[in-house]
Amino acid sequence: MKIFVINSGSSSIKYQLIQMPEEQVICSGMVDRIGLDESRIDYRAFLPKGNIVRSETKVINSHSEGLRLVAEYLTDPEIGVISDPKQVEAVGHRVVHGGEKFASTQLISSAVKAKIKELFPLAPLHNPANFLGIEVAEEIFSEAKQIAVFDTAFHQTQPPVAFRMAIPNEFYEKHGIRAYGFHGTSHKYVSECAMDHLGSRSLKLISIHLGNGCSMAAIQNGKSIDTSMGMGPMNGLIMGTRAGDIDQAVIFYLVNQLGYSLDEVNNLLNKKSGMLGLTGFSDMRDIQKHLQEGDSRAQLAYDLYAYRIKKYIGAFTACMNGLDGVIFTGGVGENDRLTRKLVCENMDYLGIQMDLTKNENLGRGIQEIQNSDSKVKLLVIPTNEELEIAKQCFGLLKIDL
Amino acid sequence: MKIFVINSGSSSIKYQLIQMPEEQVICSGMVDRIGLDESRIDYRAFLPKGNIVRSETKVINSHSEGLRLVAEYLTDPEIGVISDPKQVEAVGHRVVHGGEKFASTQLISSAVKAKIKELFPLAPLHNPANFLGIEVAEEIFSEAKQIAVFDTAFHQTQPPVAFRMAIPNEFYEKHGIRAYGFHGTSHKYVSECAMDHLGSRSLKLISIHLGNGCSMAAIQNGKSIDTSMGMGPMNGLIMGTRAGDIDQAVIFYLVNQLGYSLDEVNNLLNKKSGMLGLTGFSDMRDIQKHLQEGDSRAQLAYDLYAYRIKKYIGAFTACMNGLDGVIFTGGVGENDRLTRKLVCENMDYLGIQMDLTKNENLGRGIQEIQNSDSKVKLLVIPTNEELEIAKQCFGLLKIDL
Repeated sequence: MKIFVINSGSSSIKYQLIQMPEEQVICSGMVDRIGLDESRIDYRAFLPKGNIVRSETKVINSHSEGLRLVAEYLTDPEIGVISDPKQVEAVGHRVVHGGEKFASTQLISSAVKAKIKELFPLAPLHNPANFLGIEVAEEIFSEAKQIAVFDTAFHQTQPPVAFRMAIPNEFYEKHGIRAYGFHGTSHKYVSECAMDHLGSRSLKLISIHLGNGCSMAAIQNGKSIDTSMGMGPMNGLIMGTRAGDIDQAVIFYLVNQLGYSLDEVNNLLNKKSGMLGLTGFSDMRDIQKHLQEGDSRAQLAYDLYAYRIKKYIGAFTACMNGLDGVIFTGGVGENDRLTRKLVCENMDYLGIQMDLTKNENLGRGIQEIQNSDSKVKLLVIPTNEELEIAKQCFGLLKIDL
Repeated sequence: MKIFVINSGSSSIKYQLIQMPEEQVICSGMVDRIGLDESRIDYRAFLPKGNIVRSETKVINSHSEGLRLVAEYLTDPEIGVISDPKQVEAVGHRVVHGGEKFASTQLISSAVKAKIKELFPLAPLHNPANFLGIEVAEEIFSEAKQIAVFDTAFHQTQPPVAFRMAIPNEFYEKHGIRAYGFHGTSHKYVSECAMDHLGSRSLKLISIHLGNGCSMAAIQNGKSIDTSMGMGPMNGLIMGTRAGDIDQAVIFYLVNQLGYSLDEVNNLLNKKSGMLGLTGFSDMRDIQKHLQEGDSRAQLAYDLYAYRIKKYIGAFTACMNGLDGVIFTGGVGENDRLTRKLVCENMDYLGIQMDLTKNENLGRGIQEIQNSDSKVKLLVIPTNEELEIAKQCFGLLKIDL
């Protein structure tokens, strides 16, 4: 079964075509800068005769135009991978916010679409773009099942102590103000990998997803029981450009004492803070370069970044009354050995002891980097959200058949 | 030496006259509802001939009038404790915010007063009232040394990883936006008691101050290294009417989607949230009554309150890489056995095991409530901020002599 996976953003569409249940990626790519200058399509096909890579810069005015272009590449007689869009049996859509309405992957109906639309206020930056992706995919892959995989769904198992906030009840009951958590697809994928790898589901795990966005989840017996992100994706860990947790008094101070508008504060905390605000760079590789050159700001930023993660490890260990494994994933989690080292340093009271040599010399796939005295397994697991989405779609359709 | 301790609020003055170094309270009381209807003075004197208690309801228009009235009580031939205000050698003032300027107790000069004034924007609800208390005390106890004891000073030992936030550096460098922490006088007092009681200063302690305001501190070798409150006193733990930590996205949602003004949000998070918002009551005794009657909202509120504390215990244990003792203090911490029980439940991975019988049957003074298997000492210690202020003043003057 061929499943086309779409992650539709405000000006981009990332895609993969995956053969299931073989879990084989047939092609992948991205349409970027839609509606802007120098729109661009990238296409990479993995064919028996060898890989094909194509990039093209051209005017792409809309998501619809962009996805139509992708379909042309897919079905191109020379570099294509299918002969007809009808060969795609399902399109799996990443949808960021499923609110409390969606605790699992959903076959998209007009009712499901209406509910996704109702959730726009909760994820104003993401859900409208995801929704647009659904509408254009319905047009272009009109015979395929359309399926929504929600970033929040995995966290819907959390108990009220984890998701409720200490504000009057009506804000939860009438307006759905609570913590939802994100990166659920990634946390689920890597925690399932970890449980398979460790040969047990009766485990207390902490999953640390560190990419542009960063979040952590406490996962007990395969279920998310707490997470660092809240109602939106801006709190919790320090991120590339997002501040993460911040005393709300700062917001009032910026507006009341320094004269910022609330929109400016929102923009500041989302786009100009985090590692960027502390160092001038949002990419850890740039920051590490400066660190090596002795830049004290880069050092402080790294220390803050790791300290915040440490605190959440401690907090989640208290929530679960124990800890069997810590998983590092995402671009930074998988590739930045310094972050992993700083996080695991001086944590033996919690049972965490890293093997520094293993941390420096990672192999491919799932890697264990604890030392032999460590009570807690330390795992580096490459995440694969597209594959998880394809698996969820395949699972749903198998049940549906 | 007679030290008069003042805690001056926006419409009240709490006071104690303490004989040092004997640590003997000579009299205590409060002037309340200053400038409002039915202002009131309470006065309690502890005399060799027996205790004297007086209350009077009358018009008190200003802090100056209020403190003058207190001085009249103090020097009253019949119920007074001194014959002349000149017998007060020092007045110790609680000042909430000392910013980065004050890491220790200060003899008040015009320069110190100017700096306290500069800090008004950081503590707009508290510092102006504290300042007013200083000015009227200078007038009435004109021969006494005036001394400021800052609620933030104890936390000034914290390292940058604990107090910096992940926003652009200029906000810290130019505007002092960072975490300061509060309740420092209480955290210092109880942690000193704990170190004396346990006979060591090489300890990793967590102090949990639970009153109307609530905060926690991680205290290593007698120094505060992290705390739950930030730039202001509204984040961290859930409090009587304050929300504590909250995803900043909620603030943007309340304004942008629900049409609240930012001042309304501030008021909501400070005065209508916390236990009040969850249950309708801010006093734990009321909430416990409802809990016993089977009120599920009271149960959830208690669970949330304890869960937040647990998470900070875990986080601070990670920060210190260990834990030797947990201290409960403040009105709730000292008196609410249910809170202590919920916090310590299922925490044995961190070395915490409570003796439930000891928790239910507290004696007076410092009490240990861990069981014999517990790696961590669990202490209940009555706080005494007035005495700590008197001690700080006495210590400062002794050095000055």
